[in-house]
Amino acid sequence: MNNSQTAKFIVIEGLEGAGKSSAIALVKDFIEKHTGAVPVCTREPGGTPLAEKMRDLVKIADESDPLCNKAECLLIYAARAQLIANVIQPALDNGQWVLGDRHNLSSLAYQGGGRGLYDVVKSLSDITLGDFKPDLTLYLDIEPKLGLSRAADRGALDRIEQQEVSFFERARSTYLSLADQDDSIKVIDASQSMAAVHKDIIAVLQAQGW
Amino acid sequence: MNNSQTAKFIVIEGLEGAGKSSAIALVKDFIEKHTGAVPVCTREPGGTPLAEKMRDLVKIADESDPLCNKAECLLIYAARAQLIANVIQPALDNGQWVLGDRHNLSSLAYQGGGRGLYDVVKSLSDITLGDFKPDLTLYLDIEPKLGLSRAADRGALDRIEQQEVSFFERARSTYLSLADQDDSIKVIDASQSMAAVHKDIIAVLQAQGW
Repeated sequence: MNNSQTAKFIVIEGLEGAGKSSAIALVKDFIEKHTGAVPVCTREPGGTPLAEKMRDLVKIADESDPLCNKAECLLIYAARAQLIANVIQPALDNGQWVLGDRHNLSSLAYQGGGRGLYDVVKSLSDITLGDFKPDLTLYLDIEPKLGLSRAADRGALDRIEQQEVSFFERARSTYLSLADQDDSIKVIDASQSMAAVHKDIIAVLQAQGW
Repeated sequence: MNNSQTAKFIVIEGLEGAGKSSAIALVKDFIEKHTGAVPVCTREPGGTPLAEKMRDLVKIADESDPLCNKAECLLIYAARAQLIANVIQPALDNGQWVLGDRHNLSSLAYQGGGRGLYDVVKSLSDITLGDFKPDLTLYLDIEPKLGLSRAADRGALDRIEQQEVSFFERARSTYLSLADQDDSIKVIDASQSMAAVHKDIIAVLQAQGW
């Protein structure tokens, strides 16, 4: 999407409890030192006032009107379209780097792999994004059971986090399979100590030649 | 979708000010007399608690975060997926007739024709609905200028109703073109007197042989 002279879009991906938050802080710090400017930080689904309202509809379970799987996929892509149009693309056009807490790969992994709707999600991805994609995705790979136990320690789980372990196992295997096919997706072993994970992330960032 | 023994899904379509509300009341009365039961009445976008929240995001303009056209399309289909899954299909499966205030044809006409995103909308329609479609659609055809002047008399216009006349002209021409290709869509001349419009609607309903 961008050549070496332009601002970059970097995304942190991974299952619950993989250590995304500390990785984001690390990469944000790297970008600030590298560019001298604070990146635009996004989270998905969400990241604009309207997209955050769509996120709420995805995250909060309504027992009287359970969100069907197709509506979940469509809502997530509505939020993504809005975020790209009103935040990510304008920032990149303005020379600002963008750091994303999740992006399209999450949908392919969770809704595509986890829910078994890969063809639906891939079609929505093509319709919504065309050839727009991050310059670099860091996928923090972790065993679902280990990640979920870390996430549970943080507090109450949302509607997505409450899925059974097999859902996250399917999501993980989709993450790994897509990473295998796309050189812009780097797999980081997130079962290591935080120091080792951060060392691996920095090594990947430095190898980009930016 | 249904054979002659099963419950039917009838949709009323048309531009603003075409007279949908009185047509809906008329068809509702027809269904009650014909089946002895009150139909399930829906409106789109909306019709379930979550889908109504999606409708609000489509209808209410947010100047700080203008809804992009793709997000609008995706949101509308998210609402439709939810309505079909949790209201329309369960009702039909339960033998209840369903009467819709707008359905998929509105998206093809407004977002497809009006916004010039026909290919996007057609793809979303295929992904979301598959071969699900109404048994009968009554399209109330009216000149956009006449309809909009009637709608304006009713009060404040929402974000969609505030589009310029050429938007509605493109929507109308898409409605007419799609009606020409699908025998389950009947065009009613809504520029006539209400009595004449209602007479035409009843004639179409009686001709179905239900």
